[in-house]
Amino acid sequence: MNVQAEWIAVDWGTSRLRAFAMAGDRVLANATSEQGMSKLNKAEFEPALLALTRDWLVGGTTDVIACGMVGARQGWVEAPYRAVPTPALAEKIIPVPDTDAQLRVHVVPGLKQVKPADVMRGEETQVAGFLSRHPNWDGVLCLPGTHTKWVHVSADEVVSFRTFMTGELFALLSEQSVLQHSVGDGWDDAAFRAGLDLSLSRPQTLAAELFAIRASDLLEATPAALARARLSGLLIGAELAASRPYWLGQQITVIGETALSNLYAEALKAQGCFTSVADCQDMTLAGLIAARNLLGN
Amino acid sequence: MNVQAEWIAVDWGTSRLRAFAMAGDRVLANATSEQGMSKLNKAEFEPALLALTRDWLVGGTTDVIACGMVGARQGWVEAPYRAVPTPALAEKIIPVPDTDAQLRVHVVPGLKQVKPADVMRGEETQVAGFLSRHPNWDGVLCLPGTHTKWVHVSADEVVSFRTFMTGELFALLSEQSVLQHSVGDGWDDAAFRAGLDLSLSRPQTLAAELFAIRASDLLEATPAALARARLSGLLIGAELAASRPYWLGQQITVIGETALSNLYAEALKAQGCFTSVADCQDMTLAGLIAARNLLGN
Repeated sequence: MNVQAEWIAVDWGTSRLRAFAMAGDRVLANATSEQGMSKLNKAEFEPALLALTRDWLVGGTTDVIACGMVGARQGWVEAPYRAVPTPALAEKIIPVPDTDAQLRVHVVPGLKQVKPADVMRGEETQVAGFLSRHPNWDGVLCLPGTHTKWVHVSADEVVSFRTFMTGELFALLSEQSVLQHSVGDGWDDAAFRAGLDLSLSRPQTLAAELFAIRASDLLEATPAALARARLSGLLIGAELAASRPYWLGQQITVIGETALSNLYAEALKAQGCFTSVADCQDMTLAGLIAARNLLGN
Repeated sequence: MNVQAEWIAVDWGTSRLRAFAMAGDRVLANATSEQGMSKLNKAEFEPALLALTRDWLVGGTTDVIACGMVGARQGWVEAPYRAVPTPALAEKIIPVPDTDAQLRVHVVPGLKQVKPADVMRGEETQVAGFLSRHPNWDGVLCLPGTHTKWVHVSADEVVSFRTFMTGELFALLSEQSVLQHSVGDGWDDAAFRAGLDLSLSRPQTLAAELFAIRASDLLEATPAALARARLSGLLIGAELAASRPYWLGQQITVIGETALSNLYAEALKAQGCFTSVADCQDMTLAGLIAARNLLGN
């Protein structure tokens, strides 16, 4: 089937490039490669994008709207952070200079916060996508992942946000620390909940509870699935203890991969929050569509 | 110079083997190799030890007293954990069967605690060494390192202990996480103290403060030494918050590498603890000497 893109939406992260052939708000096709920002120098971005999208081009110049680490200093073009409070999307998004005549590329800038110091790149597009689907929404968005973001939204602006390295800590501890010998595949809901409750109610114990996962295994041969779920619970519990000023008494939407979003949503519901979930890829696309509409055609 | 060992003391850890030629309580010579427990299968321990000590052997059978991971299940001989409360040293230490006639090897067993689950191997020998030098000492020993141990000692017994992965977390975060781009060499006392005070007084903020190190650097180009010291302060502060039941109002001795011990000691003094320090290698040797005296000759 011959796909002819009216424009192209691009989610370009540290480790992956994902492109969507679009007609208005509709996705015609998508393609993914491992050509993430971290693997490319400045001259390699355009060939990487053309390799993935060439079959969609119809002649003339095709607009491309991209978000994510492609706009970092080490990316294709630096799209400087915009300071909060601010709308999630800028009125002007950043054009990439000197591209091939086939593509006219624009990059969505990330957001920064001066105090406490914080930054995001990519998540602002998901926030914009969510707000384009839910006009006048006030509340808190939680975007769990490698670096989980908590984002306070009010009056169509990002008021403040805070980042937690929970996903990266989980990966480091479960794959590279002494806990790798005890943590394996699988899951155990009760162990997750026990870990979560413990570090949410007594966050200062986290530092001691990590090695206890290894020691329990040495002394009692803990199942690997149970160790995995407990570690996840302890880390997410510590994050919830630290992010309490964000979620306490708030309306929350969790935007992420389904399984992880559900873990956060269940934990927040147990704390009495009114919580819903949304798919992160849907929100990224909605945000890129909103950015294209701002571009004005 | 020809060294003739009356006996040999061995500190055999995960990544390193260190041997001492001894005459009574005196060190005649020492030697180190990278043949740690993790690199050896069962048949390779004896050749590794002989390679390091052969020149010290005087004919007949030489006694060897070893401590550390050499006694783990994956080590030379499993020296089963002894449950606390118990003296730091067992009356019987574990002989290695079927060694070469030149060596008669004994391994000091580690300690375990059922609840909260915890284990140690090697540190019990440092504790025993400290107590051999300070009879009737009651208080708390802090042994900082990759896995920091807090040990409550009373009436010549280890009453309880708790392990913190602070050193391993620091290494993972500073070398393998996104913080590696911001953390470099050097040190900054004020940044250490600020991080320490923050997570000691508000331990729940640790999870949020880690990414802030990266964000501060992106926004304000933080010096790498300052980022390093702040990360260390945040992690040690979180450990001190969690170990408060151990140190509050106690007499403390910190046993470790000098620079690291001094960091802990200063932090504890600032909390009003009566704190002193002792060298970890001295204490290991003193403990191995005490173990040999128990062996009875």
